[in-house]
Amino acid sequence: QRASAKGGPKILPPGCSEENFTSFLDAARKLVEDDNVFLIELDHNLIDGDYMQPCKGHDMHAIVDREYFVASATVSPRDVPEVQELMRLCNKHEIPVWPFSIGRNTGYGGAAPRVPGSVCMDLGKHMNKVLDVNVEGAYALVEPGVTFFDLHEYLEERNLREKVWLDVPDLGGGSIIGNAVERGVGYTPYGDHWMMHCGMEVVLPNGDLIRTGMGALPDPTVSKDPNLRPDQQPGNRCWQLFNYGFGPYNDGIFTQSSLGIVVKMGIWLMPNPGGYQAYMITLPRDEDLHAAMDIIRPLRMQMVLQNVPTLRHILLDAAVYGNKKSYSSSDKPLTDEELDEIAKKLDLGRWNFYGAVYGPEPIRNVLLSVIKQSFLSIPGARFWLPEDRKEPNSVLHTRSNTLQGIPSVDELKWVDWLPNGAHLFFSPITKISGDDAMLQYSVTKKRCVEAGLDFIGTFVVGMREMHHIVCIVFNREDHESKKKAHWLIRTLIQDCAEHGWGEYRTHLALMDQIAKTYNFNDNAQMKLNERIKDALDPKGVLAPGKNGIWPKGYDKEAWAIPSE
Amino acid sequence: QRASAKGGPKILPPGCSEENFTSFLDAARKLVEDDNVFLIELDHNLIDGDYMQPCKGHDMHAIVDREYFVASATVSPRDVPEVQELMRLCNKHEIPVWPFSIGRNTGYGGAAPRVPGSVCMDLGKHMNKVLDVNVEGAYALVEPGVTFFDLHEYLEERNLREKVWLDVPDLGGGSIIGNAVERGVGYTPYGDHWMMHCGMEVVLPNGDLIRTGMGALPDPTVSKDPNLRPDQQPGNRCWQLFNYGFGPYNDGIFTQSSLGIVVKMGIWLMPNPGGYQAYMITLPRDEDLHAAMDIIRPLRMQMVLQNVPTLRHILLDAAVYGNKKSYSSSDKPLTDEELDEIAKKLDLGRWNFYGAVYGPEPIRNVLLSVIKQSFLSIPGARFWLPEDRKEPNSVLHTRSNTLQGIPSVDELKWVDWLPNGAHLFFSPITKISGDDAMLQYSVTKKRCVEAGLDFIGTFVVGMREMHHIVCIVFNREDHESKKKAHWLIRTLIQDCAEHGWGEYRTHLALMDQIAKTYNFNDNAQMKLNERIKDALDPKGVLAPGKNGIWPKGYDKEAWAIPSE
Ligand SMILES: Cc1cc2nc3c(=O)[nH]c(=O)nc-3n(C[C@H](O)[C@H](O)[C@H](O)COP(=O)(O)OP(=O)(O)OC[C@H]3O[C@@H](n4cnc5c(N)ncnc54)[C@H](O)[C@@H]3O)c2cc1C
Ligand SMILES: Cc1cc2nc3c(=O)[nH]c(=O)nc-3n(C[C@H](O)[C@H](O)[C@H](O)COP(=O)(O)OP(=O)(O)OC[C@H]3O[C@@H](n4cnc5c(N)ncnc54)[C@H](O)[C@@H]3O)c2cc1C
Repeated sequence: QRASAKGGPKILPPGCSEENFTSFLDAARKLVEDDNVFLIELDHNLIDGDYMQPCKGHDMHAIVDREYFVASATVSPRDVPEVQELMRLCNKHEIPVWPFSIGRNTGYGGAAPRVPGSVCMDLGKHMNKVLDVNVEGAYALVEPGVTFFDLHEYLEERNLREKVWLDVPDLGGGSIIGNAVERGVGYTPYGDHWMMHCGMEVVLPNGDLIRTGMGALPDPTVSKDPNLRPDQQPGNRCWQLFNYGFGPYNDGIFTQSSLGIVVKMGIWLMPNPGGYQAYMITLPRDEDLHAAMDIIRPLRMQMVLQNVPTLRHILLDAAVYGNKKSYSSSDKPLTDEELDEIAKKLDLGRWNFYGAVYGPEPIRNVLLSVIKQSFLSIPGARFWLPEDRKEPNSVLHTRSNTLQGIPSVDELKWVDWLPNGAHLFFSPITKISGDDAMLQYSVTKKRCVEAGLDFIGTFVVGMREMHHIVCIVFNREDHESKKKAHWLIRTLIQDCAEHGWGEYRTHLALMDQIAKTYNFNDNAQMKLNERIKDALDPKGVLAPGKNGIWPKGYDKEAWAIPSE
Repeated sequence: QRASAKGGPKILPPGCSEENFTSFLDAARKLVEDDNVFLIELDHNLIDGDYMQPCKGHDMHAIVDREYFVASATVSPRDVPEVQELMRLCNKHEIPVWPFSIGRNTGYGGAAPRVPGSVCMDLGKHMNKVLDVNVEGAYALVEPGVTFFDLHEYLEERNLREKVWLDVPDLGGGSIIGNAVERGVGYTPYGDHWMMHCGMEVVLPNGDLIRTGMGALPDPTVSKDPNLRPDQQPGNRCWQLFNYGFGPYNDGIFTQSSLGIVVKMGIWLMPNPGGYQAYMITLPRDEDLHAAMDIIRPLRMQMVLQNVPTLRHILLDAAVYGNKKSYSSSDKPLTDEELDEIAKKLDLGRWNFYGAVYGPEPIRNVLLSVIKQSFLSIPGARFWLPEDRKEPNSVLHTRSNTLQGIPSVDELKWVDWLPNGAHLFFSPITKISGDDAMLQYSVTKKRCVEAGLDFIGTFVVGMREMHHIVCIVFNREDHESKKKAHWLIRTLIQDCAEHGWGEYRTHLALMDQIAKTYNFNDNAQMKLNERIKDALDPKGVLAPGKNGIWPKGYDKEAWAIPSE
């Protein structure tokens, strides 16, 4: 729904009159003050920005028309009561609102809303405090705007890394809350961020404020001040120590969902393990993937592999060292021979395994000796320590930081594999097994080649499964390139569903398609999700369409992504 | 509501006419066959039975009048469609139904329903198959009736304990599903049963059947048979490997809740660690609790203490060796001197710490040396291996089994501390810290003494908190003893709330009181729980009142537990 009036938004919220929108904006401006309401006007030029300065009203790695996933306005509340009041306002005016913490969710839609014309709520701009770092309990309590970089610096400045470590994803600029509620991953032993969260404060769609777990029990010994607002009350001393509380354990319904806005969250920190060593193992042949996986599974389940290790395809590493042009003048997918050549040139394997051992030296030595012995049974496999790699931009050096929770943006470089580099993540879950990994690799690679794109990917090894992250890099200024990437991911979703594989997370444009693959027993899970959604958000104002869940007022089909 | 007609139930479901009940029973009998409907008739004599033969229609450790928490009938479905159909019948007749898996939930209400006259659904009688044990993925898929004993025997018979270990609670007769959905605990590194579950199949209050996580994605590669019922379809190959799936992660709302009936659940098994050693450390003085806790916290967080260890009060051990009478003729709480004497006689400490190390010998040695060195800094502390203890019924010998997942019923003995022994668990959560543990111990002990009861308790050490389990033993044939126990737990709940402590789980009779302590921001969490409850179960038929959550048709106050 395009707005007509000059001075109005580029896109109005669905079904919203200009008067209603203006009256909403006036109320919002009064609430959060003018500076914190940003209207995306009709003639506004959508500037993507970059990772460090991401745009906040559209998808900066747009895979469909850049003008599609665009907000009507961005509002930045300054505290929890303003978030609550905004939710009440949105209900009153029946305006959809899309909350985000930082907006660096690239590859999955950035800060953009699923429904064009939604109001985006930028939680991180003002609500960005580290509320607590408790060394004894090894946890932090943070607001949405706290990035991995922020918490890292907080620890560094106070010399707390001697005591506790943070877990970080590949890039440090994301929100700790934003990443955890999307169930993102990092690479230390605390890599499952959702598993490691503990206790939340959440604004519900109707503006109510809850604390989960032990947070629901007020602690009279920490504060008796009756003048404190609920959100200002110090939490129960066990809020960040014990997740489940009493009664239904609700936390999970606030992940990948449209049921609440997380305004505080506890995250467990890892006690400094008293020693650390990162390493890389290079595997020469493409088919070594098979043997590697069957080695990894038992070691990981036994916790000999203590962290979330990754097995990276040569091109993911190569792309960090340079763009496609620097290796080849071809604009076709690189051939096996070319990949072998690149591996040789970089002195890397066709697959490269990055892990680390944690603990005092005698423990590390025992673990490392088992790890080496196991992997070096693969002919031609080589073991490397960071000091063995002298090249600039060494991925092992970066991983050595990441795997001890030191954030960076080094890995951003692979996004520039193609000119005007943008990316889309395809992230199916798979068993840790040679057969499964080989099959999933061949199925996905085949389609990449069909789309004329290089396969770039990594297997991220969780407790008993892997997140296979296929990085679809495209040229965002090239219509054809975007079309291919979009075709590719739609086709991969379908192919994988036929193999029984499903994705753990996705871009706005693919949410409906993926949700439909989780259709056991006539979509029984979706019906449950919709029933809960309608009960908590009867007007359907909070993030309609997120992860394929549409409130009762919305016609799913009408909101299908326009195919180009 | 007492029934009048002979041949009718002792207690009718609330608001239910005898005709309606009869017509429900007829339909139920037709569905599951006569043998699987058991009516608790007006003149039925309520027999408690014992742990091995628990009663299925009332609380066998009744803390209020034995005639209060009593079902109208027990129905035992034979398969998932019958569970679904029973839910539809209950909706049709508006009859409350209370599901249980085994009914050995002693100390928390056994198999009894919260609302007298509910129909109990005995899931475990027929639905008791181990559906899968997958060694490669280290998991099992079980039905509600599978007990820890059952799965253990399954592993033993197939020589699978060489590969994978089970985690068990103190007693092996409980349901793996029943225990996990109540968020019960065991004592290996996999002791948090809820954390270690993976993937569920759940019947919703309206009879719909869902699979959670990856289970929601049908796997065409494992079966294409169109004639299989949904519940018979082989699950997605990642169902038991990855919990979260796509979209809201709903599993938690089916724990300690009345939102669904879990008919299948995956549970992770621990890969055989390749070596094991249990040990005990005895601490001579009551106040050693303080030092011990401050030693335990960092060791546990560093995973030097790999499992869920326990620090047990002398009387918990003493009660396993003999009843109160065998130590003293006093009917008052035992004095410090008497406790010292018992400790001396048993060659135990006033507190006794039970742990284990896992892994190959060099790893175990490193860990044990750190553990010993830390604890033996407490004057008089002594370190014991199982072979050091030659007495019969040695608790260390039992723990040595429990801590490697070998189930038993040895610990049942402490329930007989008093004649006609019955028990009630008071289970607050606390920080792992000397100050907190001492304070909670003194607050709870003081009230035990006031009630004329002995303090019997254990600190169960989780990841960053402790479940402090206070075992309130009473004489179930002595009205005064029951009254005291009931007074004690009500008082403890209140005292602890004033210290900011809350319980993790509770008996039917205390659910409302505890739920009310989790009242942050004007009971915001309860309002959320009620909203979800009403949305999924508009007629309020599934387990009304469970964990303090009452459907909209119920007047909470009217269902308050009668005080004696
Ligand atoms: C090179 C590269 C490497 C990457 N590596 C990783 C990796 O290792 N691991 C990984 O997980 N990701 C990775 N990503 C993806 C992404 O950068 C991170 O996941 C990032 O943390 C997400 O962005 P954000 O934190 O700014 O989230 P936001 O954009 O703030 O939030 C993302 C979404 O979460 C929801 N949300 C956010 N905050 C809230 C809230 N407070 N309440 C309710 N809902 C909320 C909203 O739906 C929002 O759209 C990578 C990306 C790139 C480009
Ligand atoms: C001496 C002693 C020691 C104990 N030690 C421990 C211990 O170490 N750890 C521990 O956790 N407990 C312990 N307990 C308590 C108890 O014995 C166990 O928790 C036991 O597993 C619970 O009984 P059950 O498995 O038969 O559960 P059930 O009685 O089958 O279920 C308990 C409740 O869970 C819910 N429920 C059960 N099945 C389902 C289902 N399929 N779908 C939905 N809801 C369901 C119902 O509300 C039901 O009332 C101990 C008890 C005693 C007496």
